[in-house]
Amino acid sequence: MRNGFEFELIHTCKQTGARLGRLHTPHGDIQTPCFMPVGTQATVKAMTPRDLDEVGASIILSNTYHLYMRPGHETVREAGGLHEFMHWDKPILTDSGGFQVFSLSSMNKITDEGVVFRSHIDGSKHIFTPEKAIEIEEALGADIMMCFDECAPYPADRRYTRDAMERTHRWAAQCQAAQKRNDRALFGIVQGGMYGDLRIESAKTLADMDFIGYGIGGLSVGEPKEIMYDMLEQIEPHMPKEKPRYLMGVGSPDCLLEGVMRGVDMFDCVLQTRIARNGLALTMDGKHMLRNAEYAHDFRPIEEGCDCYACKNFTRAYIRHLVKAGEILAAHLITLHNLRFTLRLMENVRQAIAQDRLLDYYQEVRAAF
Amino acid sequence: MRNGFEFELIHTCKQTGARLGRLHTPHGDIQTPCFMPVGTQATVKAMTPRDLDEVGASIILSNTYHLYMRPGHETVREAGGLHEFMHWDKPILTDSGGFQVFSLSSMNKITDEGVVFRSHIDGSKHIFTPEKAIEIEEALGADIMMCFDECAPYPADRRYTRDAMERTHRWAAQCQAAQKRNDRALFGIVQGGMYGDLRIESAKTLADMDFIGYGIGGLSVGEPKEIMYDMLEQIEPHMPKEKPRYLMGVGSPDCLLEGVMRGVDMFDCVLQTRIARNGLALTMDGKHMLRNAEYAHDFRPIEEGCDCYACKNFTRAYIRHLVKAGEILAAHLITLHNLRFTLRLMENVRQAIAQDRLLDYYQEVRAAF
Repeated sequence: MRNGFEFELIHTCKQTGARLGRLHTPHGDIQTPCFMPVGTQATVKAMTPRDLDEVGASIILSNTYHLYMRPGHETVREAGGLHEFMHWDKPILTDSGGFQVFSLSSMNKITDEGVVFRSHIDGSKHIFTPEKAIEIEEALGADIMMCFDECAPYPADRRYTRDAMERTHRWAAQCQAAQKRNDRALFGIVQGGMYGDLRIESAKTLADMDFIGYGIGGLSVGEPKEIMYDMLEQIEPHMPKEKPRYLMGVGSPDCLLEGVMRGVDMFDCVLQTRIARNGLALTMDGKHMLRNAEYAHDFRPIEEGCDCYACKNFTRAYIRHLVKAGEILAAHLITLHNLRFTLRLMENVRQAIAQDRLLDYYQEVRAAF
Repeated sequence: MRNGFEFELIHTCKQTGARLGRLHTPHGDIQTPCFMPVGTQATVKAMTPRDLDEVGASIILSNTYHLYMRPGHETVREAGGLHEFMHWDKPILTDSGGFQVFSLSSMNKITDEGVVFRSHIDGSKHIFTPEKAIEIEEALGADIMMCFDECAPYPADRRYTRDAMERTHRWAAQCQAAQKRNDRALFGIVQGGMYGDLRIESAKTLADMDFIGYGIGGLSVGEPKEIMYDMLEQIEPHMPKEKPRYLMGVGSPDCLLEGVMRGVDMFDCVLQTRIARNGLALTMDGKHMLRNAEYAHDFRPIEEGCDCYACKNFTRAYIRHLVKAGEILAAHLITLHNLRFTLRLMENVRQAIAQDRLLDYYQEVRAAF
């Protein structure tokens, strides 16, 4: 137990390297492997907190960069922190803004000190340093804070990738030194691009720094999935067994299974909520673009047997009508389903790990992905 | 009891002409005076049916024109009717499409037979007749169907208004003759523009036709409110006491009170849901444009003492953030509040009528409107 956190490794699947665990946090326990719905702007899009409870979310993610920009971390602090502000009393994880200052801001300049960038909202100039990122994250008050890191793009040459990785390691130490709150967990982030030896070096370096948990960053940034899986396999033996591992920004159904089998404990992804707003629903029979004419007279639920509010009460024909008519309720119902689908998948995954049959389970369901 | 409907007039306020009643329908009872949230496209915007239950809606309205266009009344019939389609098991009222073919379609031509018009979605040509309107409404399967009518614009000269009124009366008889389902209530619609004597003639003519209830159409179409109130006062003595009276398309808080005091039993309005999507909240302290900077650090609920989910759990500062960030949750929470505010107002109105103190109540609250 450290800072109110403890990770129990309950079981490792005999068919795969998948781990069943439980992460104790000051806002409650998280069964792992877990999927974290993304609440970028202090709301998981189209969901209320009670909806998130209902679909079975045990932790959500929120984005430091976005909240710093709007409404401002000082406003969130003034509100009593993110839990109070958005009325969510289970655990929250915040990223450090590192990824967003590269991917969202219109201009940025990286130095050893930090990153100077312009706001994607009003073009104003800002600087993020490791110390600043931790200050913002502590103001937000999430249970789990990620270190400020530099995520190298794909492709990137070895030299650039090594520089970014070494900077990430230095920044990680600065983040540790900057942390003031002792009721929060700080996670280091493994970088190293698509270079296996750099990834291993990063994993080892960070392991020695004794973080409460570890992110794996800079994957799913455009590379073929096989490369991502290979990186996960290479670093796995070098990640501390007794610490949770979080594969950042990854969470399509196939990647969830592939990641879990390679020893990952935590995931987040905007896919489920983003595609829902376009009318796309996830099911074990594959994806359904509910906007399509084929669903106009389809009076079955999105997914037969699903226990979500959308599937228990509404038909594909009705939801298709809502999508075509541009109604907010379409986004709401499909989001509800996609999240429930994913969290149910994770429940099944955890059960399969406990029964040492995750590979069998994956082979049963992979046709859907 | 006729077609499963019965209107009980429970009490008339001694301070005003306001009526307390109960309308029994095949899908449950409605306490009157009542406000009906509008579900134009088979959904009250940004609300689930369980949200509507929670805010206390006992009946909703849906629009025949919109559902005829999309998804088509035959699709709704195939789904088992509107209740089944949208998963709402309390009463539904449908208008006849008469108002929309004038106000929404890009071109229309009125003859004694009906109205030829073009779809606002794809420009396709359609014709609505009284018989067609009833056929569509019966396919939708609402509890209360409105007659197909012609709503004269404002201003309109006396001759035009008389012609439109007489056509409305002929069409009302055709609608009665066309009705096939005997488990539904058909309401006639009083027209007559802003001419008191025509309004009285219309009220009397329709009273003789013995409808289960009566709409009052063609008001709140651009005229000063005083003219609307005057029309209501002029027709009141000529409306059958034992039948419900529905003031169509009217429902701002002040108009609700003014209408109730002039003997109106039912109202509908898109105001509450529409302004919510722009960030405007209704309270007893007046309207609040939550987008405004003044709410950025306002950690009070939208309305102190309100029992809605939004007010019990979220602050103005948070909702302002959601509005600024363009989040769907903003529309959801403010809609929830605005509907609850209005339905609470109607609860208070009914109580005040029962206690013969509606005028006192109105004087207490009118500052808010």
